[in-house]
Amino acid sequence: MYRIGQGIDFHQMVEGREFWLGGVLIPHTKGALGHSDADVLLHAICDALLGALGLGDIGKHFPDTDPSLKNIDSKILLAKTYALIKDRGYSVVNIDSTILLQAPKIMKYATEMKEVIARIVEISPEDVSIKATTTEQMSFIGREEGIVATANILITKVQSQ
Amino acid sequence: MYRIGQGIDFHQMVEGREFWLGGVLIPHTKGALGHSDADVLLHAICDALLGALGLGDIGKHFPDTDPSLKNIDSKILLAKTYALIKDRGYSVVNIDSTILLQAPKIMKYATEMKEVIARIVEISPEDVSIKATTTEQMSFIGREEGIVATANILITKVQSQ
Amino acid sequence: MYRIGQGIDFHQMVEGREFWLGGVLIPHTKGALGHSDADVLLHAICDALLGALGLGDIGKHFPDTDPSLKNIDSKILLAKTYALIKDRGYSVVNIDSTILLQAPKIMKYATEMKEVIARIVEISPEDVSIKATTTEQMSFIGREEGIVATANILITKVQSQ
Ligand SMILES: [Zn+2]
Ligand SMILES: [Zn+2]
Ligand SMILES: [Zn+2]
Repeated sequence: MYRIGQGIDFHQMVEGREFWLGGVLIPHTKGALGHSDADVLLHAICDALLGALGLGDIGKHFPDTDPSLKNIDSKILLAKTYALIKDRGYSVVNIDSTILLQAPKIMKYATEMKEVIARIVEISPEDVSIKATTTEQMSFIGREEGIVATANILITKVQSQ
Repeated sequence: MYRIGQGIDFHQMVEGREFWLGGVLIPHTKGALGHSDADVLLHAICDALLGALGLGDIGKHFPDTDPSLKNIDSKILLAKTYALIKDRGYSVVNIDSTILLQAPKIMKYATEMKEVIARIVEISPEDVSIKATTTEQMSFIGREEGIVATANILITKVQSQ
Repeated sequence: MYRIGQGIDFHQMVEGREFWLGGVLIPHTKGALGHSDADVLLHAICDALLGALGLGDIGKHFPDTDPSLKNIDSKILLAKTYALIKDRGYSVVNIDSTILLQAPKIMKYATEMKEVIARIVEISPEDVSIKATTTEQMSFIGREEGIVATANILITKVQSQ
């Protein structure tokens, strides 16, 4: 019994913010703006997990008006989201994601990101895929004003509830 | 025997149009522009259904040059599209979708949208996921000039033909 | 044993370039700019195949700094990518894709594109879906400055290794 989920997330890139991506702190002149740590990849994966079981979206579960979530580590949000899936008897088969950004080069951090994500959602790092592409200088992404991540997920029922 | 489908749809948001989304009329100062009722979510789901079986796209099945489709209720388009899937012996496992728009807040209508969609494609509302995100003021979406919806679908063969 | 993959690719559209799409040469006043033949659909499918098995992205396998890939036919890249999947004992169940472009009309070439892609990844043309949509004049796509393709893929294990 399989189900699929998809997530997409957008953040502005601004000076004076740390750049968290896939649970890893990336050295850069800008960082993603947001109420939490603004980790666009982890947010997209949260939404894909929630979407696979019709549990709403990240804005419902973690509203950006909640003071307790100010600058929160998105790994905590991912862990809480994954717990909802696990509680319902599902496990993750694989995650495939793409980060859309013009700069910096981030693929050298992909191995570490995969390990962080895999540990949280209890799969092998080989079952977490992280890809990146520029938008060839086009759009707000090409102008380095923003960053987008998309994630698709396949989950399967592991036990009857 | 599973298959996957994906759909994405774009509409301009303009004054003087009703705003139909997920089969529901949403109170707003603008509505989506199009030949039909311009329901961006139902169109994305139509395309995902068609795509899962390689049946072309919504523009092929429901051309915007067809006068009989002028201002048509997209629920009719979705029902016709689903009939093509059902006729071939497939049923829908789950749908996950995201609406990209800056305003208005639409998640309070999600329950009603899910019921409308679920009834048409003969699944439970729990198997229809609707998520929403802004683009953080960026792009034509952030400027409230347009709206985008994406949908991913998993279908399965229920009977041999 | 199923797995899913997703790919998205962006190219600028410029004068003085051939327009390759889905392995087919399309008559047009512009073509996609890139190091290879810049076939945005084949690149998205390559990324979806790589993503399904966590093998990195097209930029890792076929860097745009590699002189041997200058103006290369992307059908060769797709064949090399598919070989990685096949070697690991997987086959493709189905591919669903969408091309985002304002002009020209490309759906009349879809049958030929499907045959080209199906032959390379060893499935039936009926298992390759190609859809197209404009962005309703919005964004760099609507201004005909660029083109985007997205692809989703379902693969399955066919033999133990
Ligand atoms: Zn976010
Ligand atoms: Zn539409
Ligand atoms: Zn490319």
